[in-house]
Amino acid sequence: MSWVLYHYPLCPFSRKVRIILKEKGIDFQLVYEKYWERRRGFLLLNPTGVTPLLQSTSSKKLYFGNYSLFEFIENIGDRMLPTNDEEAYRARSVAEWFDVKFYNEVTRYLLEEKVIKHLTVGLSSVSPNSSAIRAAKKNIFSHLDYLNYLLQNQAGYLCGEKIGLADFAAASQLSVLDYIGDVPWEYSPLAKTWYALVKSRPSFKPLLEDEVPGIYRSAQYQNPDF
Amino acid sequence: MSWVLYHYPLCPFSRKVRIILKEKGIDFQLVYEKYWERRRGFLLLNPTGVTPLLQSTSSKKLYFGNYSLFEFIENIGDRMLPTNDEEAYRARSVAEWFDVKFYNEVTRYLLEEKVIKHLTVGLSSVSPNSSAIRAAKKNIFSHLDYLNYLLQNQAGYLCGEKIGLADFAAASQLSVLDYIGDVPWEYSPLAKTWYALVKSRPSFKPLLEDEVPGIYRSAQYQNPDF
Repeated sequence: MSWVLYHYPLCPFSRKVRIILKEKGIDFQLVYEKYWERRRGFLLLNPTGVTPLLQSTSSKKLYFGNYSLFEFIENIGDRMLPTNDEEAYRARSVAEWFDVKFYNEVTRYLLEEKVIKHLTVGLSSVSPNSSAIRAAKKNIFSHLDYLNYLLQNQAGYLCGEKIGLADFAAASQLSVLDYIGDVPWEYSPLAKTWYALVKSRPSFKPLLEDEVPGIYRSAQYQNPDF
Repeated sequence: MSWVLYHYPLCPFSRKVRIILKEKGIDFQLVYEKYWERRRGFLLLNPTGVTPLLQSTSSKKLYFGNYSLFEFIENIGDRMLPTNDEEAYRARSVAEWFDVKFYNEVTRYLLEEKVIKHLTVGLSSVSPNSSAIRAAKKNIFSHLDYLNYLLQNQAGYLCGEKIGLADFAAASQLSVLDYIGDVPWEYSPLAKTWYALVKSRPSFKPLLEDEVPGIYRSAQYQNPDF
């Protein structure tokens, strides 16, 4: 069985699925989707209108929704969650922190103001909102504190010795900001060491090769010893 | 094992957990939490700051996060999801539609503008945003169309003959709006019939008895033949 993943390179939720499919050894092809353009062909497949969207090439069935899609692919290949219920709760809850709280307080603002508005300049009369950018850049510190707290209490990864869903969710959000150079890594050496570990995995390599036309890629983005 | 649930009566995510715990036959006590007040004692238990929060009275362990909390309690008592992976995906994805898309496009606006601002009047200088209220009241129609579409293709409930997660997620959002009288039920007779079915379940009864001081409860809210 093979798959097609509709994604946008700087969409953190697309990134998470790309990493997880690779970790699971699932073959897939990418389709580049600028979701904010609301292309009719894409909306017909996925009425939520946002990336990622996964389609089975054999059954043509469609899977979308950040949480629903993950729970579905978790049944295929190596598991990203611990088998113990209590530990699986902790892993899901750290992932949900980054998917929801980090995204809404940090990534969303920077993605909208510094990427999407930049790419649609001329098409819309809306200019970047500098107070949203300032808020995001301020908010990131409490999330780095949270990462630091998790890493102080764990052995190497966010939920213990084994890498998994929580790490991939957090690294997906951070990697979008790292692309545009907006992570103050010097603030948390523990978080930086953890991110370097995640970044060095083969599943992460295709993300490091992403280059989005029109969006400046920071110098340290591809560098494992940043 | 017994549980304590920190909830706010008009928080749709709290409502969903209240219904599901009842459906599963799990005993719990309620703690009334005005989450927007950001009470220090609550934030110490739950750094996300939002309801619901579930605590085990024996182990004192804490569970929060809309998605993580559900997946954890799904291991206890009767299952709310089908056992087939494909059907479980469909159920989760309909639930996610209402938890994320419906909430962000409809419930969130009306809850903030018509409930929270009303309750904090005098404490803040912010007055209700009438354009947000208008947007929510317009957006609800496409969601009623979606409900209609699901119900035309299914037998009784949103994902088939058996009631489950999708129905409870959707009804939780709608019930908050129904409390304040903001669901145009006459627009979709199919959705109305489905909601009457969900509303008549014993698990829903405690919600119908909710009365929030200061917030007018619409006449049809408690009525099964509305």
